[in-house]
Amino acid sequence: MEAVETKILNGLDVNTLFATLDQIKANPDIARFQFRAKNKWIMGSNNRASVKDFYGALQEDDSRAIMSFDEDEPPVLLGENKGPNPVEYLLIALSGCLTTALVTHASARGVELRNVNSRYEGDIDLRGFLGLSEEVKKQYEAIRVYFTIDADITDEQKEDLIREAQKYSPVYNSLKESVNISVNLDK
Amino acid sequence: MEAVETKILNGLDVNTLFATLDQIKANPDIARFQFRAKNKWIMGSNNRASVKDFYGALQEDDSRAIMSFDEDEPPVLLGENKGPNPVEYLLIALSGCLTTALVTHASARGVELRNVNSRYEGDIDLRGFLGLSEEVKKQYEAIRVYFTIDADITDEQKEDLIREAQKYSPVYNSLKESVNISVNLDK
Repeated sequence: MEAVETKILNGLDVNTLFATLDQIKANPDIARFQFRAKNKWIMGSNNRASVKDFYGALQEDDSRAIMSFDEDEPPVLLGENKGPNPVEYLLIALSGCLTTALVTHASARGVELRNVNSRYEGDIDLRGFLGLSEEVKKQYEAIRVYFTIDADITDEQKEDLIREAQKYSPVYNSLKESVNISVNLDK
Repeated sequence: MEAVETKILNGLDVNTLFATLDQIKANPDIARFQFRAKNKWIMGSNNRASVKDFYGALQEDDSRAIMSFDEDEPPVLLGENKGPNPVEYLLIALSGCLTTALVTHASARGVELRNVNSRYEGDIDLRGFLGLSEEVKKQYEAIRVYFTIDADITDEQKEDLIREAQKYSPVYNSLKESVNISVNLDK
Protein backbone atom coordinates (compact mmCIF):
# COMPACT_ATOMS: atom_id res chain seq x y z
CA MET A 1 0.00 0.00 0.00
CA GLU A 2 1.35 3.41 -0.97
CA ALA A 3 1.59 6.35 1.36
CA VAL A 4 -1.63 8.35 1.46
CA GLU A 5 0.06 11.63 0.59
CA THR A 6 2.60 11.55 -2.23
CA LYS A 7 4.82 14.55 -1.64
CA ILE A 8 7.44 13.85 -4.30
CA LEU A 9 6.14 14.15 -7.87
CA ASN A 10 8.44 13.87 -10.89
CA GLY A 11 11.36 14.04 -8.46
CA LEU A 12 10.22 17.42 -7.15
CA ASP A 13 9.23 17.94 -3.53
CA VAL A 14 5.86 19.53 -4.24
CA ASN A 15 5.13 20.32 -0.59
CA THR A 16 8.38 22.26 -0.33
CA LEU A 17 7.56 23.97 -3.63
CA PHE A 18 4.21 25.21 -2.29
CA ALA A 19 5.80 26.20 1.04
CA THR A 20 8.40 28.21 -0.89
CA LEU A 21 5.66 29.98 -2.84
CA ASP A 22 4.00 30.96 0.46
CA GLN A 23 7.31 32.27 1.83
CA ILE A 24 7.87 34.38 -1.30
CA LYS A 25 4.33 35.78 -1.10
CA ALA A 26 5.17 36.93 2.45
CA ASN A 27 8.60 38.29 1.45
CA PRO A 28 9.12 38.84 -2.30
CA ASP A 29 12.85 39.54 -1.80
CA ILE A 30 13.35 35.79 -1.35
CA ALA A 31 12.76 35.47 -5.12
CA ARG A 32 15.52 37.92 -6.11
CA PHE A 33 18.46 35.97 -7.54
CA GLN A 34 21.71 36.97 -9.17
CA PHE A 35 23.50 34.35 -11.25
CA ARG A 36 27.10 34.77 -12.36
CA ALA A 37 29.69 33.41 -14.74
CA LYS A 38 33.29 34.10 -15.64
CA ASN A 39 35.09 33.55 -18.91
CA LYS A 40 38.77 33.23 -19.77
CA TRP A 41 39.97 33.30 -23.35
CA ILE A 42 42.33 30.39 -24.01
CA MET A 43 43.41 30.70 -27.66
CA GLY A 44 41.70 31.27 -30.99
CA SER A 45 38.02 30.38 -30.68
CA ASN A 46 38.61 28.36 -27.50
CA ASN A 47 37.56 29.95 -24.22
CA ARG A 48 36.51 28.57 -20.85
CA ALA A 49 33.47 29.66 -18.87
CA SER A 50 32.97 28.87 -15.20
CA VAL A 51 30.09 29.05 -12.74
CA LYS A 52 30.18 28.79 -8.96
CA ASP A 53 28.58 31.33 -6.59
CA PHE A 54 25.23 33.05 -6.78
CA TYR A 55 22.95 35.19 -4.65
CA GLY A 56 19.41 34.14 -3.84
CA ALA A 57 16.89 33.50 -1.07
CA LEU A 58 18.40 36.44 0.83
CA GLN A 59 21.96 35.12 0.95
CA GLU A 60 25.18 34.46 -0.93
CA ASP A 61 25.74 30.82 -1.87
CA ASP A 62 29.38 29.88 -2.39
CA SER A 63 28.93 26.21 -1.57
CA ARG A 64 29.20 24.71 -5.04
CA ALA A 65 32.44 23.47 -6.60
CA ILE A 66 33.58 25.41 -9.67
CA MET A 67 31.99 24.03 -12.85
CA SER A 68 33.99 24.80 -16.02
CA PHE A 69 32.98 24.57 -19.66
CA ASP A 70 35.14 24.76 -22.74
CA GLU A 71 33.72 26.54 -25.76
CA ASP A 72 35.22 26.26 -29.21
CA GLU A 73 34.28 26.07 -32.88
CA PRO A 74 34.53 23.12 -35.27
CA PRO A 75 37.42 23.18 -37.78
CA VAL A 76 35.15 24.54 -40.55
CA LEU A 77 34.79 27.64 -38.32
CA LEU A 78 38.55 27.77 -37.59
CA GLY A 79 38.34 25.96 -34.23
CA GLU A 80 39.55 22.66 -32.84
CA ASN A 81 36.36 21.11 -31.42
CA LYS A 82 37.36 21.59 -27.78
CA GLY A 83 33.70 22.09 -26.86
CA PRO A 84 30.35 23.19 -28.25
CA ASN A 85 30.27 26.68 -29.69
CA PRO A 86 28.46 29.57 -27.96
CA VAL A 87 25.27 29.34 -30.05
CA GLU A 88 25.12 25.62 -29.23
CA TYR A 89 25.39 26.50 -25.52
CA LEU A 90 22.44 28.83 -26.12
CA LEU A 91 20.37 25.84 -27.32
CA ILE A 92 21.58 23.86 -24.28
CA ALA A 93 20.36 26.68 -22.01
CA LEU A 94 17.01 26.91 -23.81
CA SER A 95 16.50 23.14 -23.64
CA GLY A 96 17.14 22.94 -19.91
CA CYS A 97 14.92 25.90 -19.18
CA LEU A 98 11.90 24.77 -21.20
CA THR A 99 12.25 21.29 -19.69
CA THR A 100 12.48 22.51 -16.09
CA ALA A 101 9.61 24.97 -16.61
CA LEU A 102 7.48 22.18 -18.06
CA VAL A 103 8.32 19.70 -15.28
CA THR A 104 7.85 22.25 -12.48
CA HIS A 105 4.47 23.50 -13.69
CA ALA A 106 3.29 19.95 -14.49
CA SER A 107 4.25 18.90 -10.96
CA ALA A 108 2.41 21.86 -9.40
CA ARG A 109 -0.69 20.70 -11.32
CA GLY A 110 -0.26 17.12 -10.16
CA VAL A 111 0.63 15.70 -13.59
CA GLU A 112 2.93 12.67 -13.40
CA LEU A 113 5.51 12.48 -16.22
CA ARG A 114 7.33 9.40 -17.42
CA ASN A 115 9.60 10.89 -20.07
CA VAL A 116 10.19 14.33 -21.56
CA ASN A 117 12.49 14.64 -24.55
CA SER A 118 13.08 17.57 -26.85
CA ARG A 119 15.20 18.54 -29.82
CA TYR A 120 16.32 21.93 -31.05
CA GLU A 121 17.27 23.39 -34.44
CA GLY A 122 18.64 26.89 -34.80
CA ASP A 123 19.21 28.56 -38.18
CA ILE A 124 21.92 31.17 -38.44
CA ASP A 125 23.51 32.96 -41.39
CA LEU A 126 27.10 33.65 -40.36
CA ARG A 127 27.42 36.56 -42.80
CA GLY A 128 25.98 38.58 -39.91
CA PHE A 129 28.67 37.51 -37.45
CA LEU A 130 31.40 37.94 -40.05
CA GLY A 131 30.34 41.47 -40.94
CA LEU A 132 29.73 40.57 -44.59
CA SER A 133 26.21 41.97 -44.76
CA GLU A 134 24.42 44.62 -42.75
CA GLU A 135 21.04 43.19 -43.83
CA VAL A 136 21.65 39.74 -42.39
CA LYS A 137 20.67 39.25 -38.75
CA LYS A 138 23.51 38.53 -36.34
CA GLN A 139 21.29 36.39 -34.09
CA TYR A 140 19.53 33.11 -34.77
CA GLU A 141 17.02 33.67 -37.57
CA ALA A 142 14.73 30.96 -36.19
CA ILE A 143 14.76 28.25 -33.54
CA ARG A 144 12.45 25.24 -33.76
CA VAL A 145 11.74 23.02 -30.76
CA TYR A 146 10.04 19.61 -30.79
CA PHE A 147 8.88 17.94 -27.57
CA THR A 148 7.85 14.36 -26.94
CA ILE A 149 6.05 13.82 -23.63
CA ASP A 150 5.25 10.40 -22.21
CA ALA A 151 2.45 10.74 -19.64
CA ASP A 152 -1.15 9.59 -19.18
CA ILE A 153 -2.65 12.83 -20.48
CA THR A 154 -4.20 13.90 -23.79
CA ASP A 155 -2.33 15.64 -26.59
CA GLU A 156 -4.27 18.80 -25.72
CA GLN A 157 -2.98 18.59 -22.15
CA LYS A 158 0.55 18.02 -23.45
CA GLU A 159 0.24 21.08 -25.68
CA ASP A 160 -1.02 23.02 -22.68
CA LEU A 161 2.10 21.99 -20.71
CA ILE A 162 4.25 23.18 -23.62
CA ARG A 163 2.46 26.55 -23.59
CA GLU A 164 3.08 26.82 -19.83
CA ALA A 165 6.76 26.02 -20.37
CA GLN A 166 6.99 28.83 -22.94
CA LYS A 167 5.09 31.23 -20.71
CA TYR A 168 7.33 30.75 -17.67
CA SER A 169 10.79 29.78 -18.99
CA PRO A 170 13.33 32.54 -18.24
CA VAL A 171 15.65 31.55 -21.11
CA TYR A 172 12.78 31.31 -23.63
CA ASN A 173 11.56 34.74 -22.56
CA SER A 174 15.11 36.15 -22.59
CA LEU A 175 15.18 35.22 -26.29
CA LYS A 176 11.63 36.32 -27.13
CA GLU A 177 11.91 39.67 -25.34
CA SER A 178 14.79 42.13 -25.32
CA VAL A 179 17.14 41.82 -22.34
CA ASN A 180 18.94 44.88 -21.00
CA ILE A 181 22.66 44.04 -21.23
CA SER A 182 25.51 46.43 -20.42
CA VAL A 183 29.02 45.51 -21.53
CA ASN A 184 31.85 47.44 -19.89
CA LEU A 185 35.62 47.68 -19.88
CA ASP A 186 37.19 47.15 -16.46
CA LYS A 187 40.07 49.64 -16.58
CA MET B 1 64.22 36.64 -36.97
CA GLU B 2 60.51 36.08 -37.27
CA ALA B 3 58.75 34.94 -40.39
CA VAL B 4 57.91 37.85 -42.68
CA GLU B 5 54.22 36.99 -42.82
CA THR B 6 52.51 36.08 -39.55
CA LYS B 7 49.47 34.07 -40.54
CA ILE B 8 48.37 32.94 -37.08
CA LEU B 9 47.21 35.76 -34.81
CA ASN B 10 45.66 35.08 -31.39
CA GLY B 11 45.54 31.42 -32.36
CA LEU B 12 43.37 32.16 -35.39
CA ASP B 13 44.53 31.41 -38.92
CA VAL B 14 43.86 34.86 -40.32
CA ASN B 15 44.71 33.93 -43.90
CA THR B 16 42.15 31.12 -43.81
CA LEU B 17 39.65 33.55 -42.23
CA PHE B 18 40.07 36.01 -45.11
CA ALA B 19 39.94 33.18 -47.68
CA THR B 20 36.68 31.99 -46.08
CA LEU B 21 35.22 35.49 -46.34
CA ASP B 22 36.07 35.53 -50.07
CA GLN B 23 34.43 32.12 -50.55
CA ILE B 24 31.26 33.30 -48.79
CA LYS B 25 31.14 36.46 -50.90
CA ALA B 26 31.18 34.21 -53.98
CA ASN B 27 28.61 31.78 -52.54
CA PRO B 28 26.60 33.10 -49.56
CA ASP B 29 25.07 29.64 -48.93
CA ILE B 30 28.39 28.61 -47.38
CA ALA B 31 27.46 30.84 -44.40
CA ARG B 32 24.12 29.11 -43.72
CA PHE B 33 24.44 26.99 -40.58
CA GLN B 34 22.00 24.97 -38.52
CA PHE B 35 23.03 24.08 -34.97
CA ARG B 36 21.18 21.45 -32.96
CA ALA B 37 20.75 20.12 -29.45
CA LYS B 38 18.76 17.42 -27.71
CA ASN B 39 17.50 17.30 -24.16
CA LYS B 40 16.37 14.41 -21.97
CA TRP B 41 14.65 15.01 -18.66
CA ILE B 42 16.28 12.92 -15.91
CA MET B 43 14.33 13.69 -12.71
CA GLY B 44 13.11 16.80 -10.93
CA SER B 45 15.10 19.80 -12.11
CA ASN B 46 17.88 17.62 -13.53
CA ASN B 47 18.00 17.19 -17.30
CA ARG B 48 20.77 16.42 -19.78
CA ALA B 49 21.44 18.31 -23.00
CA SER B 50 23.63 16.97 -25.78
CA VAL B 51 25.22 18.39 -28.91
CA LYS B 52 26.80 16.56 -31.83
CA ASP B 53 25.92 17.14 -35.49
CA PHE B 54 25.31 20.37 -37.36
CA TYR B 55 24.87 21.61 -40.91
CA GLY B 56 27.14 24.27 -42.38
CA ALA B 57 29.47 25.14 -45.24
CA LEU B 58 27.13 23.23 -47.59
CA GLN B 59 27.29 19.91 -45.76
CA GLU B 60 26.24 17.86 -42.76
CA ASP B 61 28.94 17.42 -40.12
CA ASP B 62 28.51 14.35 -37.93
CA SER B 63 32.19 13.99 -37.07
CA ARG B 64 32.15 15.20 -33.46
CA ALA B 65 31.71 12.92 -30.46
CA ILE B 66 28.54 13.55 -28.44
CA MET B 67 29.05 16.27 -25.81
CA SER B 68 26.61 16.04 -22.88
CA PHE B 69 25.79 18.59 -20.20
CA ASP B 70 23.84 18.10 -17.00
CA GLU B 71 21.58 20.92 -15.89
CA ASP B 72 20.11 21.17 -12.43
CA GLU B 73 19.22 23.67 -9.72
CA PRO B 74 20.87 24.24 -6.34
CA PRO B 75 19.02 22.85 -3.28
CA VAL B 76 17.48 26.27 -2.52
CA LEU B 77 15.67 25.87 -5.86
CA LEU B 78 14.72 22.23 -5.16
CA GLY B 79 17.60 20.68 -7.11
CA GLU B 80 20.68 18.65 -6.27
CA ASN B 81 23.52 20.66 -7.88
CA LYS B 82 24.12 18.16 -10.67
CA GLY B 83 25.09 20.99 -12.98
CA PRO B 84 24.60 24.70 -13.59
CA ASN B 85 21.03 25.80 -14.06
CA PRO B 86 19.64 26.89 -17.45
CA VAL B 87 20.01 30.65 -16.83
CA GLU B 88 23.64 30.03 -15.85
CA TYR B 89 24.15 28.18 -19.15
CA LEU B 90 22.74 31.29 -20.82
CA LEU B 91 25.54 33.36 -19.24
CA ILE B 92 28.06 30.68 -20.33
CA ALA B 93 26.75 31.02 -23.92
CA LEU B 94 26.88 34.81 -23.80
CA SER B 95 30.41 34.79 -22.38
CA GLY B 96 31.77 32.48 -25.08
CA CYS B 97 30.08 34.42 -27.86
CA LEU B 98 31.23 37.90 -26.81
CA THR B 99 34.76 36.54 -26.29
CA THR B 100 34.94 34.81 -29.68
CA ALA B 101 33.41 37.83 -31.45
CA LEU B 102 35.97 40.08 -29.78
CA VAL B 103 38.93 37.81 -30.57
CA THR B 104 37.85 37.21 -34.19
CA HIS B 105 37.30 40.85 -35.03
CA ALA B 106 40.49 41.90 -33.18
CA SER B 107 42.43 39.32 -35.19
CA ALA B 108 40.93 40.53 -38.47
CA ARG B 109 42.16 44.03 -37.56
CA GLY B 110 45.62 42.75 -36.70
CA VAL B 111 45.36 43.39 -32.94
CA GLU B 112 47.42 40.97 -30.84
CA LEU B 113 45.79 39.98 -27.53
CA ARG B 114 47.55 38.59 -24.47
CA ASN B 115 44.56 37.97 -22.18
CA VAL B 116 40.81 38.50 -22.35
CA ASN B 117 38.76 37.87 -19.23
CA SER B 118 35.15 38.72 -18.51
CA ARG B 119 32.59 38.31 -15.75
CA TYR B 120 28.80 38.23 -15.92
CA GLU B 121 26.00 39.11 -13.50
CA GLY B 122 22.37 38.43 -14.31
CA ASP B 123 19.48 39.65 -12.14
CA ILE B 124 16.29 37.65 -12.12
CA ASP B 125 13.17 37.79 -9.98
CA LEU B 126 11.88 34.22 -9.81
CA ARG B 127 8.32 35.36 -9.06
CA GLY B 128 8.02 35.50 -12.85
CA PHE B 129 9.08 31.88 -13.37
CA LEU B 130 6.94 30.72 -10.44
CA GLY B 131 3.80 32.42 -11.75
CA LEU B 132 3.45 34.57 -8.60
CA SER B 133 3.19 37.89 -10.42
CA GLU B 134 2.12 38.80 -13.93
CA GLU B 135 3.98 42.13 -13.65
CA VAL B 136 7.37 40.57 -12.98
CA LYS B 137 9.43 39.71 -16.06
CA LYS B 138 10.12 36.02 -16.62
CA GLN B 139 13.48 36.74 -18.26
CA TYR B 140 16.64 38.28 -16.87
CA GLU B 141 15.86 41.83 -15.78
CA ALA B 142 19.42 42.93 -16.49
CA ILE B 143 22.78 41.41 -17.37
CA ARG B 144 26.04 43.24 -16.66
CA VAL B 145 29.31 42.26 -18.33
CA TYR B 146 32.81 43.44 -17.38
CA PHE B 147 35.81 42.79 -19.62
CA THR B 148 39.50 43.05 -18.87
CA ILE B 149 41.71 43.04 -21.96
CA ASP B 150 45.49 42.75 -21.83
CA ALA B 151 46.96 44.06 -25.10
CA ASP B 152 49.22 46.90 -26.27
CA ILE B 153 46.33 49.17 -27.26
CA THR B 154 44.62 52.17 -25.65
CA ASP B 155 41.51 51.99 -23.48
CA GLU B 156 39.61 53.62 -26.37
CA GLN B 157 40.74 50.82 -28.67
CA LYS B 158 39.71 48.23 -26.06
CA GLU B 159 36.29 49.85 -25.78
CA ASP B 160 36.05 49.79 -29.55
CA LEU B 161 36.76 46.02 -29.51
CA ILE B 162 33.99 45.58 -26.92
CA ARG B 163 31.57 47.48 -29.16
CA GLU B 164 32.55 45.25 -32.09
CA ALA B 165 31.95 42.16 -29.93
CA GLN B 166 28.46 43.43 -29.07
CA LYS B 167 27.74 44.34 -32.68
CA TYR B 168 28.62 40.91 -34.09
CA SER B 169 27.96 38.37 -31.30
CA PRO B 170 25.04 36.07 -32.23
CA VAL B 171 24.17 35.25 -28.61
CA TYR B 172 24.32 38.90 -27.52
CA ASN B 173 22.03 39.84 -30.41
CA SER B 174 19.73 36.87 -29.73
CA LEU B 175 19.17 38.41 -26.28
CA LYS B 176 18.94 42.05 -27.44
CA GLU B 177 16.56 41.31 -30.32
CA SER B 178 13.57 39.02 -30.40
CA VAL B 179 14.22 35.54 -31.80
CA ASN B 180 11.49 33.66 -33.63
CA ILE B 181 11.06 30.40 -31.69
CA SER B 182 8.43 27.76 -32.39
CA VAL B 183 7.79 25.07 -29.79
CA ASN B 184 5.86 22.03 -30.97
CA LEU B 185 4.53 18.72 -29.69
CA ASP B 186 5.79 15.71 -31.63
CA LYS B 187 2.73 13.47 -31.64
